Amino acid sequence: MDEQSRPLDTLNAARNKTVMVDLKNGLRFVGKLKAFDIHINVVLHEAEEHKDGEVKRKLGTVFIRGDTITIISPA
Amino acid sequence: MDEQSRPLDTLNAARNKTVMVDLKNGLRFVGKLKAFDIHINVVLHEAEEHKDGEVKRKLGTVFIRGDTITIISPA
Amino acid sequence: MDEQSRPLDTLNAARNKTVMVDLKNGLRFVGKLKAFDIHINVVLHEAEEHKDGEVKRKLGTVFIRGDTITIISPA
Amino acid sequence: MDEQSRPLDTLNAARNKTVMVDLKNGLRFVGKLKAFDIHINVVLHEAEEHKDGEVKRKLGTVFIRGDTITIISPA
Amino acid sequence: MDEQSRPLDTLNAARNKTVMVDLKNGLRFVGKLKAFDIHINVVLHEAEEHKDGEVKRKLGTVFIRGDTITIISPA
Amino acid sequence: MDEQSRPLDTLNAARNKTVMVDLKNGLRFVGKLKAFDIHINVVLHEAEEHKDGEVKRKLGTVFIRGDTITIISPA
Amino acid sequence: MDEQSRPLDTLNAARNKTVMVDLKNGLRFVGKLKAFDIHINVVLHEAEEHKDGEVKRKLGTVFIRGDTITIISPA
Repeated sequence: MDEQSRPLDTLNAARNKTVMVDLKNGLRFVGKLKAFDIHINVVLHEAEEHKDGEVKRKLGTVFIRGDTITIISPA
Repeated sequence: MDEQSRPLDTLNAARNKTVMVDLKNGLRFVGKLKAFDIHINVVLHEAEEHKDGEVKRKLGTVFIRGDTITIISPA
Repeated sequence: MDEQSRPLDTLNAARNKTVMVDLKNGLRFVGKLKAFDIHINVVLHEAEEHKDGEVKRKLGTVFIRGDTITIISPA
Repeated sequence: MDEQSRPLDTLNAARNKTVMVDLKNGLRFVGKLKAFDIHINVVLHEAEEHKDGEVKRKLGTVFIRGDTITIISPA
Repeated sequence: MDEQSRPLDTLNAARNKTVMVDLKNGLRFVGKLKAFDIHINVVLHEAEEHKDGEVKRKLGTVFIRGDTITIISPA
Repeated sequence: MDEQSRPLDTLNAARNKTVMVDLKNGLRFVGKLKAFDIHINVVLHEAEEHKDGEVKRKLGTVFIRGDTITIISPA
Repeated sequence: MDEQSRPLDTLNAARNKTVMVDLKNGLRFVGKLKAFDIHINVVLHEAEEHKDGEVKRKLGTVFIRGDTITIISPA
C-alpha cells in the first residue's frame, strides 16, 4: 500500500522531474533532479537560482552539497 | 507496558498521520508523515509551510533533511 | 557504589518521569521522558513548550532531535 | 611519570568532584561530575546553572550533551 | 539513458573544465576543476576569488575544504 | 629528514610544554599541554583563560573539547 | 597526464612550501606546510597570523584544526 516507505524513495520518484531545493542560506534552486546520493548531495539540470522569490541567475548544471539543504520538493 | 521504548517507534506510530515538523531556521511544516529514516530525514505529503503562525505556501510532497529538524510532533 | 556510571544511565533512570529539555535555539520542553537513544533523540509525552519562562503551547507527544539539545534535567 | 596521558583520564580523575562545565551558548554549570562518555556527554549532580557570573538556578541532576560543551575544569 | 546517475559523476565530467564553487561564507571561486573526493574537497587551478560579483584576487592553485562548499556549477 | 610528518606529531612534541589554544568563541587558553587525543580534545595544566589579550582567570586543569578549537601553538 | 588527481595530492605537493590557510572565522595563516592529515588538520612552521590584510602576530609553529579551514593555497 505504501510504495514509498523510505525518504530516498521520494527523491528517486522525482528523478528527471522539476524540484525546488531550499538551502540553509536562504537560496532556492529550481531544476530537474538528475542525481542524488545518501548524503543528499544533489545534481540539478536547467537550474535557476532564486532569492526572495526572484530568479537571480540561470545555471546549466549545479551540484548542491547535501549538508547545505533544508528541503526538496517536487514542483 | 511500554510499547514505544525507542524514539523512532514514536515516528513509526505517526506514519500517515498529520505531524508538525519544526526546523532550525524557524520554519514549520505540517503534513502527513509518509517516510523517515535513522537520520530523521522525513517526507511529508499534503505539506504546508508555516512561518510566524501563518501558512506561507502549500507544497504537495516535501523531503526534509534530518539535520535541519528540531522537533516532530503529531498534531 | 556508583550505580549510574554512564550518562545514559541517568536518562534511563528518568524514564516516565518529568524532565526539562533545553534546546540550542532557546526553547525548553517539559514533559514525561518516554524514550531516548544513543544520539540523544528524545520523546516526551504530555509535553509543554516554554520560552522565556512561559508556557507557549501544549503538545501531546514530541520527538526532539538529539543534536538540537543542550541539557536534560529531571524536574 | 605521566599518569594521565589521555584527556579522558583527566575527566575520570575528576569523578565525584566539583567541576565547572562551560557551554557554547555562554552558560556555565557547576556540580559534581557523576558520569561522562567518549562523546563528552556529562552528568552532574547538585548542579547550578550560572550566567554572567551569577547563579541562575539550582538543578538537582543535569545531563549535558557533549557537543554543546567547550571546556570542563575541576573547581 | 542516464549517464550520470550519481552526483559525483557530474563532478567527474567537469574535470579540467572551469567551474564556479560557492562557499557558505559568501565567497565564490572560479577555476579549473583538477581534483575532488567523496568529502567534496576540491582543488581548482587558475583560480580566482570573487566577492559580491567582483574578482578579489587571483590564486594559482586552491584546495577548498568540502564542508565549506554550498554549490559547484560548471561555467 | 622530516621528523614530524603528521599533525599529531607536532602536538606530541609539545607535551609538557606551554601552548596557546584558541577557541571558536574567541577565548584563548594558555597552559602546559598534558594530554590530547585524535579528536583534538586537549588537557592543559596551570591554565589561564585569556580574552582580548588579558588574563581573565586562572584555572588549574582544563579539559578542552576538540571541536571548539581553531589552533594550538607552542609558546 | 594528471599527476594530482586527488585533493590531498595537492597538499602533498605543497609540503615544505609556503601556503596560505584561511579559516571560517576570517583569520588567515601563512607559513610553511609541514604536515596534514585526512581531516585536513594542518601544521605550519614560521607561521604568521593575518587579519584584514595585516600581520597580527608571528607564531613559530601552529597546528590548525581541519574543520575550521575554508581554503589552502600555495603562495
